[in-house]
Amino acid sequence: MVRINENFLSMEKNYLFIEIAHRIAEYKKHNPDKELIRMGIGDVTRPLAPAVVEAMKKAADEMGREETFRGYEDSGAGYDFLKNAIAQYYRQMGADVDADDIRVNDGAKSDCGNITDIFGDGNTIAVTDPAYPVYVDSNLMAGRKVTYIDANEGNGFAPLPPEGFDADIIYLCSPNNPTGSVYTAEELKKWVDAANEHRSVIIYDSAYEAFITDKDVPRSIFCIEGARTCAIEMCSLSKTAGFTGTRCGYTVIPKELTVTASDGSTVRLADIWARRQGSKFNGVSYPVQRAAEAVFTEKGQEQVRAAIEYYRENARMITASLDRLGIKYTGGKNSPYVWLRCPDDMGGWEFFDLLLNKIQVVGTPGEGFGKNGKGYFRLTSFSTHEKTAEAMKRTEKLFS
Amino acid sequence: MVRINENFLSMEKNYLFIEIAHRIAEYKKHNPDKELIRMGIGDVTRPLAPAVVEAMKKAADEMGREETFRGYEDSGAGYDFLKNAIAQYYRQMGADVDADDIRVNDGAKSDCGNITDIFGDGNTIAVTDPAYPVYVDSNLMAGRKVTYIDANEGNGFAPLPPEGFDADIIYLCSPNNPTGSVYTAEELKKWVDAANEHRSVIIYDSAYEAFITDKDVPRSIFCIEGARTCAIEMCSLSKTAGFTGTRCGYTVIPKELTVTASDGSTVRLADIWARRQGSKFNGVSYPVQRAAEAVFTEKGQEQVRAAIEYYRENARMITASLDRLGIKYTGGKNSPYVWLRCPDDMGGWEFFDLLLNKIQVVGTPGEGFGKNGKGYFRLTSFSTHEKTAEAMKRTEKLFS
Repeated sequence: MVRINENFLSMEKNYLFIEIAHRIAEYKKHNPDKELIRMGIGDVTRPLAPAVVEAMKKAADEMGREETFRGYEDSGAGYDFLKNAIAQYYRQMGADVDADDIRVNDGAKSDCGNITDIFGDGNTIAVTDPAYPVYVDSNLMAGRKVTYIDANEGNGFAPLPPEGFDADIIYLCSPNNPTGSVYTAEELKKWVDAANEHRSVIIYDSAYEAFITDKDVPRSIFCIEGARTCAIEMCSLSKTAGFTGTRCGYTVIPKELTVTASDGSTVRLADIWARRQGSKFNGVSYPVQRAAEAVFTEKGQEQVRAAIEYYRENARMITASLDRLGIKYTGGKNSPYVWLRCPDDMGGWEFFDLLLNKIQVVGTPGEGFGKNGKGYFRLTSFSTHEKTAEAMKRTEKLFS
Repeated sequence: MVRINENFLSMEKNYLFIEIAHRIAEYKKHNPDKELIRMGIGDVTRPLAPAVVEAMKKAADEMGREETFRGYEDSGAGYDFLKNAIAQYYRQMGADVDADDIRVNDGAKSDCGNITDIFGDGNTIAVTDPAYPVYVDSNLMAGRKVTYIDANEGNGFAPLPPEGFDADIIYLCSPNNPTGSVYTAEELKKWVDAANEHRSVIIYDSAYEAFITDKDVPRSIFCIEGARTCAIEMCSLSKTAGFTGTRCGYTVIPKELTVTASDGSTVRLADIWARRQGSKFNGVSYPVQRAAEAVFTEKGQEQVRAAIEYYRENARMITASLDRLGIKYTGGKNSPYVWLRCPDDMGGWEFFDLLLNKIQVVGTPGEGFGKNGKGYFRLTSFSTHEKTAEAMKRTEKLFS
């Protein structure tokens, strides 16, 4: 008789955003005429840049002609044209990344979830709390114990390595999802030093790097000296270029990141990951890779930056409203997320239901991101100007 | 200090097709002027169908307009338009599959590799030998033991459940990769009955179903009564519609497929898989899903069938040559693969190197698929008519 992986049984039944989708569906069933303003899931609304659309269509045409048709990619790690474009992008931000450190994927979530496969069971895993649920869930599914490092108002939701730091694997995210907090270069250096000292691996989620404006906030962990021996970085075009429905991201594992195996041999993590992907992944759609390449052209960068600027304006609207209401928050600067303390000591799900039912605004309850999210709420700046303005008008009316 | 998953260290270093790519690269380095004829990796050469290209371009345009832009898919399981089209395709072949049993993916390899996540460690896993390496490797990576059921000339490379069959999970593939053998409905029913009796799960790879011509060979395991309580089917558009570089497939887990957990509760495998995918996958690119939808339209079917017919003609050329040479083989009928016994008692890698060096033809050594592949060799019909004819001409010259 077949047995299932029973780790799944002890997990929360639903991935956070599926639970939110479920509550929304319920609400809409009973209120079919009400229009919702969605500022919950971190989903973008600006269309793909014209340069990106053109590149994808051109590649689709290539796939329709025998002379230019492409089948399997030899490596499945991404075509050189795209890896070179990404490496160039890294160089421009002062990060030390080579094209052959990069593997292209169908979005950061896949690699972020699957990376657990390459690590042994005995590792101590640390996650800052609150955190993007995938860090925790992917480890719980594999039957691993996760320890937490508190992020809270006391440390500006950007905790540094605690005294006696001894985790083998630590997940960091800056600009942070959900709190919008960031690490400066100096702070990040503390993490890199702690990781190198303990021979830990930092899994660094830089999905929101394109929102950084402050000069002292690095857009990649590979801007920090020493990171190449301790860090894996995961990034995505979802937020940078509106690829949430187009699906493309990339993972950087430097050649210098090695681990000593129990037989004393030195093993490159990049090789183990390549072996894993070789058996469980077959590369990203060629037209999608061409679309992604276009993001990194001069024209593409100009166009995607305009979208980022559009979202920044939304973040300014949200924070201006919260300022007027005297509601505390982090983020909204260097970040598309605004992380607010729920008014009147409400819990996050209570606040969620209130906004949904009273003013038809959807956000994300902090509880979904860990115990330190209790009583907090995440709003995203990814909606339209019109809807963001309307949502904040309704919020101000509700609380004043 | 971080520790890696040491199961990787005891595995063959390279995924079979990466090893082949490596040998080809070496050869080309020393013989830059020689043109290779590739009949090794199961990669297609016919371009995408015009209906498919048009659909993808139209969807790319939609992504470039605010009104029609799409971000994350709510479920990540595939849009209804595609799931309905696939369900309709299943109905036409007489298979009992509902749209909501289907999850769309970025190719069958991902799900085939990742499905191990939902099963417990204590299961007995059986694989027919020879087999597609992913079945074995994905389990070895997870530290699981794999048992083998011999496929050989004695059973026409299509073994039936052995006496005292007691595996909890069994991987089957028909039409088979690499041997080209198939199960008739009657034979497949024996597997379904054995699985239901033992409460085992059949992981059924139907990636080559579009090549079936014989009426008594089912194109889906869900053509067989009883399969909905014991089978997971994985299929792909890679071979059906030339999607090897476009990336789209689908997995079917029927609602009736349940497992009893150790606490006595009944758990649907589809729910566990949905929970896994909810945390580790974010759906397939929207333009790719629209391209896939077009495969199942009347025009799309007409166009992709023409490509399949083209490959069938190649298979006929290959088998005609082998017949003339008196070389034994299976497949080439109901299948794009021809599985041949290497002449002169050569080993598969020896034959590989001979063909590569002497006549610049690339095939796949049977050794890469398991111990029963020793001394066999796989040729694919996915090349062009011209190259297939030339490869077989050279082969005939070399051996006569």
